[in-house]
Amino acid sequence: MNVSATRPIIALLTDFGGSDGDVGVMKGVIAGIAPDALIIDITHDVAPQNVDSAAWILASSYHYFPAGTVFVCVIDPGVGSSRGAIALHAGNWFFVGPDNGLFSYVLNEQAVHGVVELANSAYRLPQVSSTFHGRDIFAPAGAHLASRASEVFQKLGPALELKTLVTLSTIGAKRSGNRVEAHILHVDNFGNLITSIPLSMIPEFFTAKHAEMTFLTTGARVDRRRRFFADGEEDGQPFLYGDSSGYVGIAVRNGNAARTLNVSYGAPITFDTSAR
Amino acid sequence: MNVSATRPIIALLTDFGGSDGDVGVMKGVIAGIAPDALIIDITHDVAPQNVDSAAWILASSYHYFPAGTVFVCVIDPGVGSSRGAIALHAGNWFFVGPDNGLFSYVLNEQAVHGVVELANSAYRLPQVSSTFHGRDIFAPAGAHLASRASEVFQKLGPALELKTLVTLSTIGAKRSGNRVEAHILHVDNFGNLITSIPLSMIPEFFTAKHAEMTFLTTGARVDRRRRFFADGEEDGQPFLYGDSSGYVGIAVRNGNAARTLNVSYGAPITFDTSAR
Amino acid sequence: MNVSATRPIIALLTDFGGSDGDVGVMKGVIAGIAPDALIIDITHDVAPQNVDSAAWILASSYHYFPAGTVFVCVIDPGVGSSRGAIALHAGNWFFVGPDNGLFSYVLNEQAVHGVVELANSAYRLPQVSSTFHGRDIFAPAGAHLASRASEVFQKLGPALELKTLVTLSTIGAKRSGNRVEAHILHVDNFGNLITSIPLSMIPEFFTAKHAEMTFLTTGARVDRRRRFFADGEEDGQPFLYGDSSGYVGIAVRNGNAARTLNVSYGAPITFDTSAR
Repeated sequence: MNVSATRPIIALLTDFGGSDGDVGVMKGVIAGIAPDALIIDITHDVAPQNVDSAAWILASSYHYFPAGTVFVCVIDPGVGSSRGAIALHAGNWFFVGPDNGLFSYVLNEQAVHGVVELANSAYRLPQVSSTFHGRDIFAPAGAHLASRASEVFQKLGPALELKTLVTLSTIGAKRSGNRVEAHILHVDNFGNLITSIPLSMIPEFFTAKHAEMTFLTTGARVDRRRRFFADGEEDGQPFLYGDSSGYVGIAVRNGNAARTLNVSYGAPITFDTSAR
Repeated sequence: MNVSATRPIIALLTDFGGSDGDVGVMKGVIAGIAPDALIIDITHDVAPQNVDSAAWILASSYHYFPAGTVFVCVIDPGVGSSRGAIALHAGNWFFVGPDNGLFSYVLNEQAVHGVVELANSAYRLPQVSSTFHGRDIFAPAGAHLASRASEVFQKLGPALELKTLVTLSTIGAKRSGNRVEAHILHVDNFGNLITSIPLSMIPEFFTAKHAEMTFLTTGARVDRRRRFFADGEEDGQPFLYGDSSGYVGIAVRNGNAARTLNVSYGAPITFDTSAR
Repeated sequence: MNVSATRPIIALLTDFGGSDGDVGVMKGVIAGIAPDALIIDITHDVAPQNVDSAAWILASSYHYFPAGTVFVCVIDPGVGSSRGAIALHAGNWFFVGPDNGLFSYVLNEQAVHGVVELANSAYRLPQVSSTFHGRDIFAPAGAHLASRASEVFQKLGPALELKTLVTLSTIGAKRSGNRVEAHILHVDNFGNLITSIPLSMIPEFFTAKHAEMTFLTTGARVDRRRRFFADGEEDGQPFLYGDSSGYVGIAVRNGNAARTLNVSYGAPITFDTSAR
């Protein structure tokens, strides 16, 4: 296994919010196993149990982390049921969490070196609850993996076949000719809407004569494009832009596009670059 | 003193919220005294000045942290008044904060090795404000303690008698026969209600023929039990479960029990396992 | 350059909020460049694009951090436009961020040893987006600076003249005689209002026979002073106090002054200590 061997790095992504002590408890467990680890919070404010949104946040984040980083991701509506618990080695990184589609983008984008089921009780807490696998299974597995990946990975449990993993049906966008069918994947802190359309899918995004996004539920259309938020006048009108995540976004300068357009997660859209 | 001597770990618990710089300032102070410390946030979003809720969050968290961890806890409505400021060595851990009941569960659950008043100005910032002891007294004491506990503890100030410490009247639950009187201690990020009834108080929780919780203020009753959130159908009805904190909880599958039952912190309840 | 050479410390201040992965991504970038750094969050919940509020939070925080700390501050409504991107060496600290007034207090309070424009692409990510300079420019510059300040600072880009930097017009307060004209700079997590009046501007704050604050928009007046929050009765009435930040504040005991007085950021006030 070819991973960097400096300080172990563990990145956490959950929907636990900030008001309980759950994230702190996971870090306490990690500190007991991997005291030297650098623990980085991606976010803990994923919309509760929104696996689609979490998968996208992970997709827009993981490639900025150093090789060898272990991502412990716990958005887990099925905790305690028969859903699988896995560790995934893909690209230069490791991913630990429930098998519910959280890693769909990673599986699409990276070479997979191995997937295992987290079955070995030696890498769990002695007592495993039915409601908090983040603490009892995922944090310990992630901490052991971050400390000694090349030794630990195969021991975590039996290898799984890639094709058995759960993947999300909502990721991606379909292009045919000049038309793309997609939907809203994320609403960010500024109210910007992020679509499921990768910029790489529409190389003509900035050069096409005309580009138009239609919100299917409301009928609203947006056909202005801008290169950055402070570009152009501040008139409360939404515009299309290339989001830093690598996807097409919709924003309002010094405003809130989600509120202006009255749309949220999952809203279906079409994007069209045909000349009028 | 028998504490682990590896990397110092400081866990923070406050009601300072995320929007001010107060928590960051405390960490800046800590970094100046104990630059090698691993600083872990339990949470900073305790309901403002809610000592009961904070005490419970600490109770459900501390035993997952490595031996030697120093917990700096600042939920401190009495800051600047004559309320005491203490450091407590109990079980394998240290606790620093105001003497207002925050450590009630710890005092109940752990052997106490010592308590001192934070009176020694050598372990404070040079200037102590009347409104931010987290920065001026508790963070410095915690940082010195985390770095060199065995040397520092006794020097922090005069020893206190255990019986003089403030304890909360709200903790715990009273069982007589098949009936338990208790109340709601915490509402978590998913809207689950956590009661003050330890699972260890009702060994028959899952085996009793009938179990019923009554909310005294609304008269609502809940008599279904489930082992985990995804157990059974999703019908919007609340059910009882064993929370991962070790207490009885009430949840709604993919819903919000606090909203469904219209109850919050402190709501009185009874729990009954008598056969009908 | 005279800075402490122990563990690199990077303090982050942004308006990115907690629900996106943006802060996590910045930390991932930092971890790749400065894996040993201690990364401290000041806050990421600055009111979106509120440079005035962010500047004040920084002002009340930075002097509690160890010498050599690098502050990476990204409240950046002008991202992608022609606004400057700078690194500043002032007092014992370094500051990295957009040139939009964020560092106004620091420039007022500290000796400036140098300012440079972040123009050198060797200290940026290979690809620089138009909308996320926190990730692409500021985090890498801050991480390089934290690791090897004395080597890196001059190489980040050309030196700038101090007088060319943007400064905020809103900072400070004007005293003439017994009257101070100022405004509300910050509303903290408890609803306390922090004014732009430094306590050092009114040495008679606690000793003057009469002191009165007037809210110009609502006409409300507050003329009680208290030394700490738990001082005096709990009657829902607002009072003046010396905030731990070093500025005059207005609070309500166990209440919310911002709500009681119905004021927010920027509200103009006068403060008067003339005898009646």
